[in-house]
Formats: sequence, structure tokens, C-alpha cells
Amino acid sequence: MKKTQLPDVHLFSERIKQGDRVTLGRAITFVESSLPAHQAFIQEVLNTIMPFTGQAVRIGITGSPGVGKSTFIESFGMYLIEQGHKVGVLAVDPSSRQTGGSILGDKTRMMRLGASPSAFVRPSPAGKTLGGVAQHTRETILLCEAAGYDVILVETVGVGQSETAVYEMTDFYLLMILAGAGDELQGIKRGVVELADMVVVNKADGDNLPLAQKAKAAYTNALHLFPAKESEWIPPVLTASALKEIGIPAIWSQIQEHHLLVQKNGYLQLRRQRQLLQWMEDALHLEILNHFFSDEHLKKAIKNYKKQVLELKITPFSAAKQLVLLFLRKK
Amino acid sequence: MKKTQLPDVHLFSERIKQGDRVTLGRAITFVESSLPAHQAFIQEVLNTIMPFTGQAVRIGITGSPGVGKSTFIESFGMYLIEQGHKVGVLAVDPSSRQTGGSILGDKTRMMRLGASPSAFVRPSPAGKTLGGVAQHTRETILLCEAAGYDVILVETVGVGQSETAVYEMTDFYLLMILAGAGDELQGIKRGVVELADMVVVNKADGDNLPLAQKAKAAYTNALHLFPAKESEWIPPVLTASALKEIGIPAIWSQIQEHHLLVQKNGYLQLRRQRQLLQWMEDALHLEILNHFFSDEHLKKAIKNYKKQVLELKITPFSAAKQLVLLFLRKK
Repeated sequence: MKKTQLPDVHLFSERIKQGDRVTLGRAITFVESSLPAHQAFIQEVLNTIMPFTGQAVRIGITGSPGVGKSTFIESFGMYLIEQGHKVGVLAVDPSSRQTGGSILGDKTRMMRLGASPSAFVRPSPAGKTLGGVAQHTRETILLCEAAGYDVILVETVGVGQSETAVYEMTDFYLLMILAGAGDELQGIKRGVVELADMVVVNKADGDNLPLAQKAKAAYTNALHLFPAKESEWIPPVLTASALKEIGIPAIWSQIQEHHLLVQKNGYLQLRRQRQLLQWMEDALHLEILNHFFSDEHLKKAIKNYKKQVLELKITPFSAAKQLVLLFLRKK
Repeated sequence: MKKTQLPDVHLFSERIKQGDRVTLGRAITFVESSLPAHQAFIQEVLNTIMPFTGQAVRIGITGSPGVGKSTFIESFGMYLIEQGHKVGVLAVDPSSRQTGGSILGDKTRMMRLGASPSAFVRPSPAGKTLGGVAQHTRETILLCEAAGYDVILVETVGVGQSETAVYEMTDFYLLMILAGAGDELQGIKRGVVELADMVVVNKADGDNLPLAQKAKAAYTNALHLFPAKESEWIPPVLTASALKEIGIPAIWSQIQEHHLLVQKNGYLQLRRQRQLLQWMEDALHLEILNHFFSDEHLKKAIKNYKKQVLELKITPFSAAKQLVLLFLRKK
């Protein structure tokens, strides 16, 4: 696509702000494009819509595969829509390229939500690195907010550092667990429990109910052991059944309560500002390394230095220093 | 220190190769120095000694605090010295700056080893980032090898990504655990068990022996569930008592067996080559970001862009792109 064929930035941005879903979808495709012209275009669009972002409640949802995150997002999302909200559903899944599609890519799991005009469901971008995937999801959050989505749900698959990445782009972090299985079996890292603003024990229905109540009590005790949160929020433990749609309103009610608290005590603004600076630093790292590795003149030198390193003629550290000097002198 | 006061590279390198401990210690101090003249000097030294590195068995040792890693390193190190080896003991502890000293910094825990002329014990370098700490430890491994140390023990404290960092600089990865406590309580991440070339159940003595035997059986079963290792090595589970010096020779015997296997089947060379290229890529990232953030001309621009980002006048992504262009044009 030539630059002349790109839409007008102003008109395109206006259409996003009017909530046009087709334009929003196209904008996200530009975000995920690696063509320099597409990137230049969408960065202009993002700068144009930037002042109209930030009004949504951004909720991160984490938990192991099989815990019922997709079913929960479907039930929770439909409930929010009934309450008059517009819901954006995104994911951070750096493994999606290998496995051929993230959980959200499997639209059959979110039939109702996917069909609703008040929901915008977008699978995780396919990207080589977590850094790239995370940046695309951050840009997509801004686009959805400009398009009027006032609750953004971001799912993490719990692979590698995706939990931290999602924590760093949301206002509220929900950890979903199952009763019965130990944390280790569920693959929950200790740090993740400490980050959580709420723990939801899912599948709390039928025969499973007593076990779920027990897990709730155990987690409530465990959470008391962590130091008080900077937000002054005390993370509650709730039980729910995403499948039977039990406990959903209580979850939303607590999230709203949290949002009011952090709006009032200034923590929301603080956390968002920290995140913006963190996003900027992450983007700096990505951008500068991207320039380095896409420098055609360097490719031969990199190959040559690699050979010398493997022959133990030069240390990898010296090779790196010399390559960086070569790169900076060339500019 | 002025450049003219720096030692002669050739003489200095020769003294390292002769195993002079004072020179080795000074070399590591240069590695950890942030002065450009010191860095330039030590990089020359490292390039000079590079062809004389690589002959050691590099062993990574991981496990939670309290599991007895220091006591084990003391017993194991003394045993190796009795067998005629020269032992280098290093650590990767990115938290050491905050806590005021790594485990190895506490020399009282390694009284005998610290006093032996055949051991060289060096605490973790203090560095802001794991990347910086890891690079210094990698450079120190090379210096110790050139100085004739033929077994290098690298301890990880298990904080953040230090386990992976140590795995990426060693030939053999030893996970130390205690009987009785669950993995989750011990803070062992799932991925770490999968990386292990050997699991040692420590404190297997006295009343604790039956429990240790049980843990050994459980881990032996669990390890069978992982896919076969590329090295063709089947990780054994051993019991030991570092304090009572029980089981130490069997551990060394298995490590030697592993080393013979991977030397014979070519895996050692493959792993070392991959590590060298990984070290080079990591060093590239560090070096280029270091140039960026130490650019005096950029500091004002960075501050200005941060302000605009916080005022939502520009996206963090655009700010990053523009700053990188500014940086590259300046050169």
C-alpha cells in the first residue's frame, strides 16, 4: 500500500471517535503492521486521539488455562453490556504465533460477546516478542477508549512475563483460580498473587461449592500476609461460577468500589502516569533495537563478529561494543 | 585513575594467566567499574585472555534461601580442592545492592573455602539491572578460567530472572531442594525444575532421612514427565547433607559423567556457542541503551517528551520514536 492510499488522519481519527467499528478494526490492523508507512500513519492517528483516551476502567484478568477465563469474560462482558457499558476485550499472548491463535482467537468461546454491537473482541496480536505484543495491546487500549469503550478487559495467558505486562497496562488486576488444586499445579507464580486486586474462585457451583468456600477462606488468610497496597485497597476474595453466571454483579460492584477509591485518593492518576512513562521507556528500548537490527550495513559486520566470537578471537562484549560504535558512526 | 596509570595489557593478562590472585581480583574490579577507561582496558585484557578460556566445568547452583546452598558450596568446593581442582565461586544476585551484600558476600559462611589458596570466592557484583550483573559475572568466569580455575560454581539467589541468567552461563544446572516443603513454599518456579540437570535433596541426615528419600522418589517420578533433554542426559535426583558432608562425591561423579557425555556427543560445544551468541546479543542491548541514556544532549529532550506524554499531548510510542530519531541524527 502506497502512502497516497492511506486515509486522511483527521477523518480517520474522527471516525474512530464516533465509534465506527470497521475503522477501529482497520486502525488495529495498522498498529500490528510492520510497514513503516502504516506505522507513521497510525502514530499520527494515536497522537490525534490521545487526549480522548483514559476514561475506561482497564481490568487485567489472569489465571491458568482451564480456570475458565474465557467463559468468565463472556458472562462478565454480557453483564456489563446489560448495565449499559461498551466493552473492549483484548489479550496479551506472546505464544499465539506458535500455537496458531490465542484463546481469544477461538471466537466460538465468546459467541454472545462476539456478536454484540456493544463489545469489541480482538485476539492477541501475533508478535515475536512479548515487548512487541504488549506495545500493540497498549495502543489498542487507547484506540478502544477513543472509540467509546468504557470497560477494557485484557486477558493474560500466564506465559512468561505476560502477567507483568498486563499488570502494567491495567488499573485493576483480577486473579482467577480454581478450588482444590494447589497454586503450583495451577502454575500461579507467587508474585502474581501479590499483584492481585481481587481473587475470584471460579466454578463455585454444585458439588464444588464447599471446596470453593474453603479456597476462599484460605486465600483471604493468605492475602492478609502481604504488605498493605499503595492504593490502600484491600483485595477481596470472591467465589463465582462464570458458567452459571453466579457472583458476577458482586465482582463488578467491587471493581467499581476500587475505582472510586483510587480516583479519590489519587492512586489511579499516579498508576496511570507511571504506566505512561513505563510504556515510553519500553517503546524506546524496542525502537532503538529495531533500528539497530534492521540496519542493512550492519548485517555483514554482525555476521563477521559472530564468527570471531565463536572462534574465541574476541569476547562477545567487545564485539557488541564495536558493533554499537559502528552503528552510531554510520548515522 | 588516569589512563596512563593503567597497567600494561600484555603484562596484566600474563599475570592473570599465571594465576596471580591479586591481579585476578583487580581485573574483576575493572570489570565492575563504570569508568570508560577501565572498561576499555579490561575489554582489551578479556580479548587477550579469550583464547585461554573455556576449559572449566561451569556449574550453576539454584535453590531457595535456606536450602543450604552456601554450606553445600563450602563442602563441595573443599572436596573438589582435595581432588586437585581449583575452584572459582561466583554469584548472580541483582538484589545485592538493595540488601547490602549477596549470600556470598557473607564470607563467614564459607570460611574454609575463602581461606584456601585453591579457591577464588567473589560475591555478586552490585549492579542496577540483572543484565549488568549477569554480564559482569560472565566476564568474571572468563577471567577465572584464564587464571586456571577448572571448576566454576555460579550461585543464583532465585530472584526474578536470575535463574535463567545463570542457566545461560553454565554447562550444568543443579537444583537444590529440601524434603517436606512443597515446591510452591520453596519458591521454585516450574521452569527451573525443567532446566535442572540434577536435583539434590539437601539436609538428608538424621530424622530427616526418610522424608528426603520420599522427596527423591517423588522428584524422580516428576522428572520423567519432562521431555527428553537435547543433551541426551537424564537428570538424576540425589540426596545429600552438605553440613555432614554426605553424598558429595556422588554429586561430582555424576557431573563428571554428564561432562564426558556432552563433550562426546557435541552438546557442550553447541551449548557454549549458543551462549556466546546470546551473551553478544545481551551485551548489544545493554551497550546501545547505555549510549542512549548517557547522551547529555538527549536528557533535556527526554524530560520534555515525558512532560508531553503525561499531559496526553503525544503517545509514549511517538515520543519514543522521535527521541530515537533525535539520538541517531546526533551521531
